[in-house]
Amino acid sequence: MCDSCGCHIPDHETTTQTVDVHESLLAANTKQADENRQHLDAMGAVAINLISSPGSGKTTLLEHTIQQLRDEMKIGVIEGDIETERDAARIRKQGAPAVQITTGGACHLDARLVHKGLHQLQHESNVEKFDIIFIENVGNLVCPATFDLGEHERIVLVSVPEGSDKPAKYPKAFISSQSFLITKTDLLPYFDFSIEEAKTEAMKLNPALKILELSSTTGNGFENWLSHVRQLVKK
Amino acid sequence: MCDSCGCHIPDHETTTQTVDVHESLLAANTKQADENRQHLDAMGAVAINLISSPGSGKTTLLEHTIQQLRDEMKIGVIEGDIETERDAARIRKQGAPAVQITTGGACHLDARLVHKGLHQLQHESNVEKFDIIFIENVGNLVCPATFDLGEHERIVLVSVPEGSDKPAKYPKAFISSQSFLITKTDLLPYFDFSIEEAKTEAMKLNPALKILELSSTTGNGFENWLSHVRQLVKK
Repeated sequence: MCDSCGCHIPDHETTTQTVDVHESLLAANTKQADENRQHLDAMGAVAINLISSPGSGKTTLLEHTIQQLRDEMKIGVIEGDIETERDAARIRKQGAPAVQITTGGACHLDARLVHKGLHQLQHESNVEKFDIIFIENVGNLVCPATFDLGEHERIVLVSVPEGSDKPAKYPKAFISSQSFLITKTDLLPYFDFSIEEAKTEAMKLNPALKILELSSTTGNGFENWLSHVRQLVKK
Repeated sequence: MCDSCGCHIPDHETTTQTVDVHESLLAANTKQADENRQHLDAMGAVAINLISSPGSGKTTLLEHTIQQLRDEMKIGVIEGDIETERDAARIRKQGAPAVQITTGGACHLDARLVHKGLHQLQHESNVEKFDIIFIENVGNLVCPATFDLGEHERIVLVSVPEGSDKPAKYPKAFISSQSFLITKTDLLPYFDFSIEEAKTEAMKLNPALKILELSSTTGNGFENWLSHVRQLVKK
């Protein structure tokens, strides 16, 4: 079997059957996502789903965000990864409860895994109510864009080293997100990255997208990011 | 339906059915991959499948490689992308025939798409025999590792900005590859990337892995890479 994602191969004999299975699986995911949202609403938490390629700086962003906000709000983190447990350990060092969900080969989180993660987070931390729960998705710009996890806000990240053509090349991630974070802006002098191109292409795909630029290393733009998080929590 | 990869959601009612479908799809892919290898062998070409995250420098590596080798061997390129046609245009500017295969949402190439790409490449370029065919997979470190395309050599790339923890986090890409390229080494002074960690973790997963370091920008390490390509063509 395809133990990474079960991706389908276009094939006349099997396509119809595959489509049917996938449609029912996606419908089941959406149902579970709606239940997750009710669960989150009941505990008064806003959930943020972070999606990006590997290495765009999601975990580093969370480390710095927790440092800045841990005294004013209750933060929990669900870390998605294919195999390792490293990221949750990094988050816990910043003083926030974190659970690591390993997907066992799959290239994205789904609503069922997040449902388990939510219960595990409450149970292990002995905390019933969070103000905000960050969900760090598996590093992948493609499949996570298709799966509603029950989040209130989806944020897509692109780091400067990845290139400003990424919105045009991975449109669904930008169409399905509410915000777009351009990260590692301290590296702009060393890369042929056009902030203008990235913004224009992203806005073409999704004119309602909120776009922020920041560097976790220098702190440039970080205050705007923190304001955005505070606003989401207030809603 | 799941239009990006048809990823399956673990679910008791549907898992068995999904696994069956995926097993037959993967078996069909392997069969087609074997046919692709016969097709390539018949034309005397070696095929190299490049897999990596988005933005690791696959297209830039190919541009520089073609510049250096176009006078001594016949090079063709199959570019895999989800939506856009940009990369093939960049390759053609370097004087090599290139076809762009868009996957229509899927997060990886499969053997059937590459089969079509091979015929299209021969037809459009009016070239029957190539010495080497590079296949640039969709930017994704997860699913491409599962799909044999009929290539002779699979090469996984990690660029310095992505971080040296990538082998441990995306093991299958390293287990299934013959070579590992560490790219953008000119950026080592600006990143917390440990060449030692990347190599050690990769070798733990796959002790037979050939590891090369290079910078397409400065040309450091590029001669070793070209020697490796020349050796593959000679085989």
